[in-house]
Amino acid sequence: MGWITLTTDFGLEDGYAGILKGVIWRIAPAAQVADLSHAVSPQDILGGALVLECATPYFPTGTVHIAVVDPGVGTRRRPIAAHIGECYFVGPDNGLCTLLLRRAEELCQPVQIVRLNNPRYWLDDVSSSFHGRDIFAPVGAHIANGVPLGELGDAVRDPLLLDIPVPQSFRDGLRGQVIHIDHFGNVATSFRRSHLEHLGRSTALEVHYRGQVVRGLAETYGQGRPGSLLAMFDSSGCLALCVVNGNAAHQLGASVGDPVEVLLPRQVTSQ
Amino acid sequence: MGWITLTTDFGLEDGYAGILKGVIWRIAPAAQVADLSHAVSPQDILGGALVLECATPYFPTGTVHIAVVDPGVGTRRRPIAAHIGECYFVGPDNGLCTLLLRRAEELCQPVQIVRLNNPRYWLDDVSSSFHGRDIFAPVGAHIANGVPLGELGDAVRDPLLLDIPVPQSFRDGLRGQVIHIDHFGNVATSFRRSHLEHLGRSTALEVHYRGQVVRGLAETYGQGRPGSLLAMFDSSGCLALCVVNGNAAHQLGASVGDPVEVLLPRQVTSQ
Amino acid sequence: MGWITLTTDFGLEDGYAGILKGVIWRIAPAAQVADLSHAVSPQDILGGALVLECATPYFPTGTVHIAVVDPGVGTRRRPIAAHIGECYFVGPDNGLCTLLLRRAEELCQPVQIVRLNNPRYWLDDVSSSFHGRDIFAPVGAHIANGVPLGELGDAVRDPLLLDIPVPQSFRDGLRGQVIHIDHFGNVATSFRRSHLEHLGRSTALEVHYRGQVVRGLAETYGQGRPGSLLAMFDSSGCLALCVVNGNAAHQLGASVGDPVEVLLPRQVTSQ
Repeated sequence: MGWITLTTDFGLEDGYAGILKGVIWRIAPAAQVADLSHAVSPQDILGGALVLECATPYFPTGTVHIAVVDPGVGTRRRPIAAHIGECYFVGPDNGLCTLLLRRAEELCQPVQIVRLNNPRYWLDDVSSSFHGRDIFAPVGAHIANGVPLGELGDAVRDPLLLDIPVPQSFRDGLRGQVIHIDHFGNVATSFRRSHLEHLGRSTALEVHYRGQVVRGLAETYGQGRPGSLLAMFDSSGCLALCVVNGNAAHQLGASVGDPVEVLLPRQVTSQ
Repeated sequence: MGWITLTTDFGLEDGYAGILKGVIWRIAPAAQVADLSHAVSPQDILGGALVLECATPYFPTGTVHIAVVDPGVGTRRRPIAAHIGECYFVGPDNGLCTLLLRRAEELCQPVQIVRLNNPRYWLDDVSSSFHGRDIFAPVGAHIANGVPLGELGDAVRDPLLLDIPVPQSFRDGLRGQVIHIDHFGNVATSFRRSHLEHLGRSTALEVHYRGQVVRGLAETYGQGRPGSLLAMFDSSGCLALCVVNGNAAHQLGASVGDPVEVLLPRQVTSQ
Repeated sequence: MGWITLTTDFGLEDGYAGILKGVIWRIAPAAQVADLSHAVSPQDILGGALVLECATPYFPTGTVHIAVVDPGVGTRRRPIAAHIGECYFVGPDNGLCTLLLRRAEELCQPVQIVRLNNPRYWLDDVSSSFHGRDIFAPVGAHIANGVPLGELGDAVRDPLLLDIPVPQSFRDGLRGQVIHIDHFGNVATSFRRSHLEHLGRSTALEVHYRGQVVRGLAETYGQGRPGSLLAMFDSSGCLALCVVNGNAAHQLGASVGDPVEVLLPRQVTSQ
């Protein structure tokens, strides 16, 4: 059997994502295939990396995650496959798996990466513009079938990594940024629990964003009335700004990349 | 094996719906999972209930329908699972299964509902904001695996029910409302066949909506020319206003909640 | 097992596509079902035909492709099923399978078409407006189960065919048209390799469109800088105009049906 997921910027109009399933089923006829997202913005590699980071921990051990956000298709960027902790990644070597690699490092899990240079595991004809169909889907299906990575190509020790924004200290606290706005309009920031937990009681923190100040972090939506603005850790572990039963991004005019500040209790006290 | 469907307001951008499939496959590795809709408007519980009513009769006996339109997540609303006629429902106790319960009652089918309070069948860590992932998907997968409802929690006898709009009599006929506008722009109303069938010949009825009068109910689109406005029972059994090869909602400026009137033949005659 | 794909204009909001999966699984409980597209524009039969042409070669032999873009539902248009080369088609007889039939003819593959007039393989109740659910999905599932076409209805020898635009010669070269604009804004034209390959070196050709002239066909995106306009054969084999890491359709103001001209090297030379 085996499980495979797809994360792309293909959209849903043209049948491109469906084609990947056809290619997979010709090679791994009983594979279960789940769409994670086909709505990553074209060229938005960080957006694809965030979808993968958020979703992959919830799939069975051995699941193969094929990701195709690939502005460099047709250039010299390498196609790769990787065994990262409990899962596999297949896609272009452009940083899409950066957050999976970072987590494996944090958890001291083994990582193996290969450059896909054995065409025996590709389609017979490889186009210059659709490697998702011609290289990544067939390779992913072969991995689901149990083909070892070493068969697929030569070892890679220098995968391309994204420069992931990390919150920075400044005089009054920490400065981070908006990294994602989801379907509900929740505004996720680059602050993780680990960035804030040494700062003391979360109820004393202040989040400053676009002239708004949110005092204290909430534990659940139930702590706010409909329409109120809360700061809380979202289901992926990122500090997020949310409006109870509303759309924080619309209300705040949020954009990815906006600066967000968290002030430490001591500074708050001393003001 | 087993079949599971998903109905949510998650959208398709963020990977949230895909995560549910991962959770399901960790527990029920061979489950077949179908998306019904992830485009229910946030907070639109009636919209989710209509999708479920429309789709569930067509799935195999024993299919588990997970539905997550959950504005109350993180409050005291109960998570529930229910055996309703031939299918299972898993989701928040906020009225999403109202129409399934109503149909089971009409068909004299048995119903069993439990409050999900046995965390043994949840993920180990339950967030405050994503019970679809942490409670409903794992419980749905366990049900697909054959776990009896009684294992999942204590019996519930007072599920929350939506107040479903029912057509009302007035001097000249019946007054109902628009309950759904679909992808094709068909305007579905709260009139069912049962509301109208005692009124006599359907060809004599008049449907009044936004200043337009449609005389007689059509049996098929084939009875009208392209561009003409018809009233007919749609494939879910609701009286709907349709434009042949066109978009009735755009043409009429329709909105959910608009009043619609059906005049009885006698009143028509006497005018 | 068996594989089935779905191509429709149903959209994803209402659960209509999910219903087809329920119907399929009641009849073929282990069928693997892939969505090709549910975003074909209502009534756009050529759009649906292009999705099918593009995707079907990549699915396993014997895959059943159910396609429902069906403006004639409820009229006398015939429901059909066909064995076309290595795959099956099920849908209305309105030209949706034209491009599959054309390819089978080019490859000298056998074709068998039947009119669906044996209601034993339909749902018990057939609505006048949702033959996807009531006729095409159950018939597709029965074909996946191995029911021979001859069981499903009587032979058809005159399927309705779309009038597919073919490039025409004119004084200076060939005139074709835009046939599709994809999610990335790539502008596909009616020119195939076979139309151009007798014209000599592709690097000498000129593509004229909306006042722009592209000289020479590129082999890969890598041949252009980000933002530059290229003409190249896309992954389906159509000549397409593309902007490297950009959206050619937006940049050019492209519309399906626009004329596009390819000038032959000789004419270019003589100018």
